[in-house]
Amino acid sequence: MGSRRLRIAVVGATGLVGGEIVSQILRSRIDVGDLLLFSSDRSSGHLAWLGKGHQEVRPFRLEDLCGCDICFLAVGDDFSKEYAHRITSLGITVIDNSSAFRMDPNVPLVVPEVNPEDLAWHRGLIANPNCSTIQMVVALAPLHRRWKARKVVVATYQAVSGAGGQAVGELAEQAQAILEGRKAASGSLPKQIGFNLFPHIGDFDSEGWSTEESKMLNETRKILKDNEIVVVPTAVRVPVFRGHSEAIYVEFEKPIDLGTAREDLSRAKGVKLMDDQRQTIYPTPVECANKGDVFVGRLRKIPGCPNAISMWVVADNLLKGAALNAVEIAELLCADARK
Amino acid sequence: MGSRRLRIAVVGATGLVGGEIVSQILRSRIDVGDLLLFSSDRSSGHLAWLGKGHQEVRPFRLEDLCGCDICFLAVGDDFSKEYAHRITSLGITVIDNSSAFRMDPNVPLVVPEVNPEDLAWHRGLIANPNCSTIQMVVALAPLHRRWKARKVVVATYQAVSGAGGQAVGELAEQAQAILEGRKAASGSLPKQIGFNLFPHIGDFDSEGWSTEESKMLNETRKILKDNEIVVVPTAVRVPVFRGHSEAIYVEFEKPIDLGTAREDLSRAKGVKLMDDQRQTIYPTPVECANKGDVFVGRLRKIPGCPNAISMWVVADNLLKGAALNAVEIAELLCADARK
Repeated sequence: MGSRRLRIAVVGATGLVGGEIVSQILRSRIDVGDLLLFSSDRSSGHLAWLGKGHQEVRPFRLEDLCGCDICFLAVGDDFSKEYAHRITSLGITVIDNSSAFRMDPNVPLVVPEVNPEDLAWHRGLIANPNCSTIQMVVALAPLHRRWKARKVVVATYQAVSGAGGQAVGELAEQAQAILEGRKAASGSLPKQIGFNLFPHIGDFDSEGWSTEESKMLNETRKILKDNEIVVVPTAVRVPVFRGHSEAIYVEFEKPIDLGTAREDLSRAKGVKLMDDQRQTIYPTPVECANKGDVFVGRLRKIPGCPNAISMWVVADNLLKGAALNAVEIAELLCADARK
Repeated sequence: MGSRRLRIAVVGATGLVGGEIVSQILRSRIDVGDLLLFSSDRSSGHLAWLGKGHQEVRPFRLEDLCGCDICFLAVGDDFSKEYAHRITSLGITVIDNSSAFRMDPNVPLVVPEVNPEDLAWHRGLIANPNCSTIQMVVALAPLHRRWKARKVVVATYQAVSGAGGQAVGELAEQAQAILEGRKAASGSLPKQIGFNLFPHIGDFDSEGWSTEESKMLNETRKILKDNEIVVVPTAVRVPVFRGHSEAIYVEFEKPIDLGTAREDLSRAKGVKLMDDQRQTIYPTPVECANKGDVFVGRLRKIPGCPNAISMWVVADNLLKGAALNAVEIAELLCADARK
């Protein structure tokens, strides 16, 4: 990846995240020559709008990637497991949005604002973290650097778009049915989501933790390079279309100063402080949808707990929680290559 | 209140909670002679359905309470402050659902499953706790008795019915507008609630805590008679009509055993364990609406934290969170009187 224009592929371009990756690539500082769009499955043949015109989304074929510099995978774990290493063996850098390789010790798991240094040791494959993890570590890292976080208790309020396009339709249809006095038809989500919510994202392990919750613990430890930090999540799907929210309580090694925390956060890259309760200013999903930052509000100290803080963190799960973070990884790769 | 049939008044009978109080009285073991329904305001003249027929809701007049045994107040703080003591001075026992007297040291704050003994020292006025507090302490008390809870971190998912009938209409109207591609009109709630949520229930104090959050700390301490317990809440309004949910993390003084915790909870009065993740069994608001219990699920231990536990607690905010708890207080008063 020198100074020539890049040939970039997006696999899974008809999905919610894949579509946003395409948009974010076109808005990025990446010097795009060719942009090849693939679907992993039956949704090929669709047309994607690329600003300057339409482009057909083709069914994925490994040989069609020849000559590519970067390949984004916005597909399921199984597809990534099958193809990621085969793509890197073609000399193509893969940025994988699935969870297939996130905990692989040979694969860096990168949030550009938090651990850009981990890009240095990639071997062709870079993992994009889980949506809930990304927004949490972006807000946590500036405070962790100064006071060292030891325990994080987090409850999430996760939008249906995190479960894909079908879940988005399911929320709309169930809500409409209920408003009309009809029964909500069940769908792909584990329980009714129209005017309801449930603490169930992914599968449950034998100890009772959901995969989403385990990801928040394990990925946070890997990104912060701190296996002592304890993360206690409850991951909850809520009837919101776009934008994940998190109520986060953090205990640090040392007493924390609220003014300094505010300063650190307001200066932190990728963070926007929205915290003035007198003016009803705190982030909510609809206010943060389609925006790239991680929004932090309701910062407060706990009486009797000098080492602790509570905050409210909202971000667009499809952008910073997925597509934007992946494209920022690519931007960083390109900038490093130009050095 | 000996063995004769009781004369009972409900003030605020046209509100969501007042209406449920009437229903719960009629389903209770209270031997009701007369049931007088009052509104505190302009909504008088409405008819309330009482099972055996309709009854008019009259505008409140203090003198109309003469001869009553129990008066339920399901009205705002201001009304309760103005009238509660004037009603008790007529020899009538007041059960007040407002927050006006909850922290008054002369007024017991009672959850029948948790601190029935506090009814013994009432002086005519008994306070019904906050909805979010009630369901939390019902789930917490059995564990607290055995292991002594020291710190509780709780994030709430609170239904709009907790904000009254107008907020219920607001959610329905905003959701309908958004489904039709229109803009959601703003209403009485601080931010859009249709397909959105916000961490703002009540007003904010100078330290950044909302009144709902302060209630959860202060009322829990009073009910459990433990001023050392730390409660760190984030109170959030969600686009759900009925049923509050809570993600609760608790640290105890001693290591906790999950099997014993399950046993204690399954035996606890007013608690229903819904906890079998293999069968997708955990409580959600729509499953718990119109039911009287506090439902507990997703009980799990925290690796590396032997003294801690996480759980998911759901209850109908209008029933156990308000009307049912108030009527259970009255039942207990009547049972004590019969002894």
